[in-house]
Amino acid sequence: MMRAVVLNEHGLSVTDRPIPAPLPGEVLVRVMKAGLCETDLQLIRGYMGFRGVLGHEFVGIAESGQFRGQRVVGEINCACRQCDTCRAGLMTHCPHRSVLGILNHDGAFAEFVSVPEVNLHAVPDSVSTEHAVFTEPLAAAFQILEQIPIDKSQRVIVLGDGRLGNLCAQVLSATGCHLTVLGKHTRKLSLLARRGIDTALVNDVLFEREADVVVDCTGSAGGFQVAVKLLKPRGTLVLKTTVAGTPPLSLAPLVIDEITVIGSRCGPFVPALRALKEQRVDVDSLIEGTYSLNNAIAAFERATSTPTLKLLFE
Amino acid sequence: MMRAVVLNEHGLSVTDRPIPAPLPGEVLVRVMKAGLCETDLQLIRGYMGFRGVLGHEFVGIAESGQFRGQRVVGEINCACRQCDTCRAGLMTHCPHRSVLGILNHDGAFAEFVSVPEVNLHAVPDSVSTEHAVFTEPLAAAFQILEQIPIDKSQRVIVLGDGRLGNLCAQVLSATGCHLTVLGKHTRKLSLLARRGIDTALVNDVLFEREADVVVDCTGSAGGFQVAVKLLKPRGTLVLKTTVAGTPPLSLAPLVIDEITVIGSRCGPFVPALRALKEQRVDVDSLIEGTYSLNNAIAAFERATSTPTLKLLFE
Repeated sequence: MMRAVVLNEHGLSVTDRPIPAPLPGEVLVRVMKAGLCETDLQLIRGYMGFRGVLGHEFVGIAESGQFRGQRVVGEINCACRQCDTCRAGLMTHCPHRSVLGILNHDGAFAEFVSVPEVNLHAVPDSVSTEHAVFTEPLAAAFQILEQIPIDKSQRVIVLGDGRLGNLCAQVLSATGCHLTVLGKHTRKLSLLARRGIDTALVNDVLFEREADVVVDCTGSAGGFQVAVKLLKPRGTLVLKTTVAGTPPLSLAPLVIDEITVIGSRCGPFVPALRALKEQRVDVDSLIEGTYSLNNAIAAFERATSTPTLKLLFE
Repeated sequence: MMRAVVLNEHGLSVTDRPIPAPLPGEVLVRVMKAGLCETDLQLIRGYMGFRGVLGHEFVGIAESGQFRGQRVVGEINCACRQCDTCRAGLMTHCPHRSVLGILNHDGAFAEFVSVPEVNLHAVPDSVSTEHAVFTEPLAAAFQILEQIPIDKSQRVIVLGDGRLGNLCAQVLSATGCHLTVLGKHTRKLSLLARRGIDTALVNDVLFEREADVVVDCTGSAGGFQVAVKLLKPRGTLVLKTTVAGTPPLSLAPLVIDEITVIGSRCGPFVPALRALKEQRVDVDSLIEGTYSLNNAIAAFERATSTPTLKLLFE
């Protein structure tokens, strides 16, 4: 048996569960550290209707396979690798996929998680376990650069100063674009300002409509409406966070201003691990607490009630 | 004085108005025919808060300038041609623009309309006046091809069998793509089926998620939700119609499936006039009635109460 953070119809609890039995092609990973994500909070509110062990950001030791005994991180989409979508290279969109801790697959807030071996990446020795737990959210930030060209001529605004906003800002800043991060929390913005990134409180902003690209990392429905007020005509809005429910929204500005909206989800692990190895991204300042699995409920309560950056489990 | 269809705080009326005094660079056009558009119906419901003479699809005789005495059609965005947006070539997005019959500029449901001379295009002799009145909405359909590449390999769905849906379908069909038009009206769909275009009633459709591109011409908030159920992951949704208000919408599918949404508005007149000249687009079957200006209220009532294709004023 193992300890695990389980979401079921009665809510969240820390309980004993059997150690997962790896499916064909899967490898058992002994979890060292795992990160709490905005998506976990949305799942608790009913997003995706998920039931099972939560957690999809993790570092652990592979128990078997080519990485046996090594520290690994894992991509979260478990694809069939046989359907038309997979053969077109879109494994993250496989219609038959499960997703660790999000869709039909137990996650990593547990002593063990079972992961397809093809999803694993060895963690370079020089990258600490605490840093490596950021590989998954950092990869999601790098996904923006896979989807749209960002160059020095562009004005880019990141909306949101939380975990994902911070990582997106650091990744985008490296392109040399004219970057501003708008947030609601002076303390969180100061982490980015310290790294030379322009920041402002969103309530202080004059909506000048000068942005070529806005990246919405607010995790709230309001981000969309703010973004369309900041974008130039024919600008691009990158949606990074999923919002549960159906908030009232006007799409008319998209048509009038011929705005492009691009949904952006999971990203490539290789550039994320490289950025961590080369210390081009600061993640230390994002870590605000580390909890044992047995104290997971307290961590979730803290993340839900007060604006926190990254909480880890170990 | 002239007769004109005016929208003000008391609603719609046909009244006498002074003949418009052309602004610098504008030319007076004696309107021959004008077309009623879904946008006109939205304006009456409060979209844009417009007050003045309605109408932005028209053919007329230029009273002065280089086209004097000739039949002309006119682009509807009146740009300053001096600001950064205009100098970047985005005249349709000039922040200082007025728009004929839509924003701060009287429109063409009148005996005369004043139009910037640079916006005018001569109508080829071989194009009838009835056909030429479709130049503006047909240009809006051609705008799709300006924004995204469409080729023979792609599965494209047009949602909506109304005026704009019909024109978009005819333009897209010419690319050789695998096109299906989904609508709610057997009679309207049959106009397209007769031209060899695949059609189906939207209620009969199995949502297979096989479309590379969906073009929403429904003019209703429901189109967005249907479109995301038809699109492949990483597919593209082209929004052609503006919907007033803030309906409840879920953007989460855009993120999960990394869908791109592109707003699409006014388009290029040159390919539209060429398609009419070469008779590559059928517009005759769209015309369901022609009204005098004095009977305009009856035309609006008919367009609002029953599903009609194109009504013209003369």
